[in-house]
Amino acid sequence: MSVPTDLASSVRVLAFDIFGTVVDWHGSIVQEMAQLHPEVDGGAFARAWREGYKPAMARVMSGELGWTRIDDLHRMILDDILPRFGLAGLAEAERAHINHVWHRLHPWMDSVEGLTRLKRRYTICTLSNGNIGLLTNMAKSAGLPWDCILSAEVFRAYKPDPATYLGVARVFDLAPGQVMLVAAHHEDLAGARACGLRTAYVERQFEFGTSDPKDVSPQPGNDLHCESLVALADVLGA
Amino acid sequence: MSVPTDLASSVRVLAFDIFGTVVDWHGSIVQEMAQLHPEVDGGAFARAWREGYKPAMARVMSGELGWTRIDDLHRMILDDILPRFGLAGLAEAERAHINHVWHRLHPWMDSVEGLTRLKRRYTICTLSNGNIGLLTNMAKSAGLPWDCILSAEVFRAYKPDPATYLGVARVFDLAPGQVMLVAAHHEDLAGARACGLRTAYVERQFEFGTSDPKDVSPQPGNDLHCESLVALADVLGA
Repeated sequence: MSVPTDLASSVRVLAFDIFGTVVDWHGSIVQEMAQLHPEVDGGAFARAWREGYKPAMARVMSGELGWTRIDDLHRMILDDILPRFGLAGLAEAERAHINHVWHRLHPWMDSVEGLTRLKRRYTICTLSNGNIGLLTNMAKSAGLPWDCILSAEVFRAYKPDPATYLGVARVFDLAPGQVMLVAAHHEDLAGARACGLRTAYVERQFEFGTSDPKDVSPQPGNDLHCESLVALADVLGA
Repeated sequence: MSVPTDLASSVRVLAFDIFGTVVDWHGSIVQEMAQLHPEVDGGAFARAWREGYKPAMARVMSGELGWTRIDDLHRMILDDILPRFGLAGLAEAERAHINHVWHRLHPWMDSVEGLTRLKRRYTICTLSNGNIGLLTNMAKSAGLPWDCILSAEVFRAYKPDPATYLGVARVFDLAPGQVMLVAAHHEDLAGARACGLRTAYVERQFEFGTSDPKDVSPQPGNDLHCESLVALADVLGA
């Protein structure tokens, strides 16, 4: 894939979606549940947990709930789904431990290498609905070399609210077109594009596990489409 | 200096003041001004600029000014002092360039080594009145290996407002006593202590230049008193 030189040089900040784009939430949860509760279908459990995520954020953004961090939304959803998986009896300490799995998610194989290369040429930051503490703990455990951790918690709004995308540009005193969102989700990229950001789609075919591959065919509108973060570093010359 | 084991092990996050504690604002500004405007007394210029800092933040915290980032406060003060130094005629581009010197401040000699060691054992973050973009640019240019950049901009309050110190504990879901503020300024440390944080004073005798050494003798109340960030790593066993 050839990249116009002006794109690579006009972009100054790369903002990364995290869950699914940089780290493998599905595989990480399946792996932890296999150790903690091998009797549970870890894939179904991970998907059920993740399915509660957008509705929970929508309740915050509609004003039905006051500002609530993802750690607390994750916990509400967890408490809700546990009975469905025969785990209604889990004690507080184990619930808290499982809820923190989101702080311990593993990076995709190419993430650390790709980010390390991209960091040489660009400012690299998170732009995640995850809270700051979660993202910081994850960075330490996964070895993600962020220059800066930005989050819905900083902007008090969840993606795809424009306050998040425009907030990144504002933090760095840049025009929106000098910021590129990197994500594996078209809705997120569309939100960024509508605010004038550049966008890069990353294929994460197995976000929902190897038995349920995602359609990762190119869609129009994005500036870049790449297989991995290493491929993104290649096309951006980093 | 011997440190109680329970202090080193109960603290989880080290939050660092930046200007004067981790980076040498005075020396860096003197050096840049010597290149840009050798006719100006760089030391007097640096001090005049810095002296405007607390009054400007006080105007924000009193509500006289709406929320204003340090980049913008620095610029207001700069515009105010330039005529005093014979620089009333500076064009916009040069004013903007000089204002960004705060993004390019040099670390004290021990800062990178000390932080790199402390990062192995603790989560290390900034807690500065500087804005996020300034702190991120500084970290890239100075090689400061933060786990997370926290700032007055995140909490919408300037130190020593309790919202900043307690905000760090809240971000990481910790009790205040599990967070330690590291700073070269007693007022900052007193604010943190009043919120229940642990505190470490760092001697920066030449914060205002070698010709104007600061009194760095120990004062009561701080948990630790050390010569440098390497010495802090030593006493905390990192």
